Amino acid sequence: MKTMLLCMDDVRSSLSMAAVIEAVEEGYLAFEEGKVQQPDIVSMEMPEHHGETDIKSCYNALNESVSVKIASGFYDNGKTNDLPTMIGTILLFDGRTGASVCIMDGSLITAIRTGAAGAISSKLLARKDSKTVAVFGGGGQARMQVYGLCQVMDIETIKVYSQYPHELAAYKADVEKETGRQVILCDSVEMTMEDADIAISTTPSKEFLVNSSLVKPGMHIVAVGADMAGKNEWDPQIFRGAKVVGDSIAQCVSRGEMRNAIVAKVIAEDDIYGEIGEILAGKKAGRESAEEITIFDTTGMGIQDNVTAMRVYEIAKEKGLGQWFEFL
Amino acid sequence: MKTMLLCMDDVRSSLSMAAVIEAVEEGYLAFEEGKVQQPDIVSMEMPEHHGETDIKSCYNALNESVSVKIASGFYDNGKTNDLPTMIGTILLFDGRTGASVCIMDGSLITAIRTGAAGAISSKLLARKDSKTVAVFGGGGQARMQVYGLCQVMDIETIKVYSQYPHELAAYKADVEKETGRQVILCDSVEMTMEDADIAISTTPSKEFLVNSSLVKPGMHIVAVGADMAGKNEWDPQIFRGAKVVGDSIAQCVSRGEMRNAIVAKVIAEDDIYGEIGEILAGKKAGRESAEEITIFDTTGMGIQDNVTAMRVYEIAKEKGLGQWFEFL
Repeated sequence: MKTMLLCMDDVRSSLSMAAVIEAVEEGYLAFEEGKVQQPDIVSMEMPEHHGETDIKSCYNALNESVSVKIASGFYDNGKTNDLPTMIGTILLFDGRTGASVCIMDGSLITAIRTGAAGAISSKLLARKDSKTVAVFGGGGQARMQVYGLCQVMDIETIKVYSQYPHELAAYKADVEKETGRQVILCDSVEMTMEDADIAISTTPSKEFLVNSSLVKPGMHIVAVGADMAGKNEWDPQIFRGAKVVGDSIAQCVSRGEMRNAIVAKVIAEDDIYGEIGEILAGKKAGRESAEEITIFDTTGMGIQDNVTAMRVYEIAKEKGLGQWFEFL
Repeated sequence: MKTMLLCMDDVRSSLSMAAVIEAVEEGYLAFEEGKVQQPDIVSMEMPEHHGETDIKSCYNALNESVSVKIASGFYDNGKTNDLPTMIGTILLFDGRTGASVCIMDGSLITAIRTGAAGAISSKLLARKDSKTVAVFGGGGQARMQVYGLCQVMDIETIKVYSQYPHELAAYKADVEKETGRQVILCDSVEMTMEDADIAISTTPSKEFLVNSSLVKPGMHIVAVGADMAGKNEWDPQIFRGAKVVGDSIAQCVSRGEMRNAIVAKVIAEDDIYGEIGEILAGKKAGRESAEEITIFDTTGMGIQDNVTAMRVYEIAKEKGLGQWFEFL
């Protein structure tokens, strides 16, 4: 039994945003068709080391593979050592035999498949004439969301705001180089939201940043940052009357941005419009008017890792990348 | 970040039953001291391929490591391919940084750490003058239990019974060679239990094999086979009045042999005496008389994998075994 090993550079060489968007769409459809087993997220916490480790697992009956992603966040890394804050490992197993197929660095995959998720939602829910995007946060995910979005929409202007403004010069340089679009650095939330057609939040905020008065008819909102109870980027009032879509409603209700709106009793679970896979499958309509406010809440699903890692594995195999190890 | 890779042969060269018994004792103590986070077992099922994949994870604050074991059972393996039925992979991460420390074949570790668990229970709960052991099942775990037991007790005779008697000739040859003790093949459950001081069950049985009338005062029972709801090796009546000990009571009550006795209302959860770690730590007594019947129920814990895999990793590093791969 030979297992392929892929380091971060191998994974980088085997990933393109366009391919990942396609893969994540397949994943959302598989989930909607009931072809996916996605056990609850496993979490272990090491408060004494400012760290946590999560496990997202998934069996996808369509590609007959099991994926297991072990992702850690240790927030003192980089200070006392030269490790990145986020370290991820993804394992792929053959769902017909249990054989270990591939073990790869998982750090890039989480970032890119989350960017792809936002892009897919904008394709289905944003106004087709959207030109201006407001971005909250200036880190890796704030980049990935824009890289994904620019693959699927004719964006002209990116307005960005961060609670850590020192990171924005590098953000502007990177994003302008990667996308060819203009990045405008904003010094207030209000300035960022002005004229935005799409607004994307990628911060670890625990108290909401964006007041509901700043959300105008016709906007599409992508809520990425809130992925566990206690995180909050948006005024819960924005959910009132909006078309609310989740990646997995069950997961978003328990740990996403919609949780805050439900806890605040702004909406009930019954008010949620549907899952992104239902819209992709054509079972439910996407945006239906130029005025409606649409919200996509994503907490990240094992199926996204599964389909993205399988795509990486296939491309790496074609390209002859990586090394092989016989565990058995 | 360099990760050690260990194949099955490397793991085999780095394991001794004596070292694993020591490691598992440390693990049980750590669990009892509240130093272990052990999330619920994750299970995915592939009935279309007669397979299942489970994940047992654990953070041990004493050795500051996270372990994740992904273990599959695919019951058509070996028929249409040359893969073993059970395939396991264990990953170790540094619990201070999230760094990936070691990835090893996990097939042997489950077997040996389970054998060690039975041995530890016999040391604490069997009569010191125990000479004869009854074994149910003739597979790998039926071997490991005896290998463990012979490390800690002066066993003279091993009596074995299997529902698949064809496997017993090989069992006798292997066990006599490994332990130097006599193995007697039995053709009935009654014959097997006669004169037994310790009885160990390792079958996947779904209906009980051993009637309570065969369990005599002074016996110690090690119930290994039942590790999920629906499995049953012992007449639930044996639990009445016995000293019942579990590895993790919470886990045994939901998926071990004790579950059957509770469901049958032979005992209530309050009748369970304690956890093996409490006895190891001296908080509760082990065996207190030559007449009492003691039962150890083990469903297998992530902490056993954690401490065993860490021991393997340390020994492999000393011996210069394995290969290294840089994921990051």
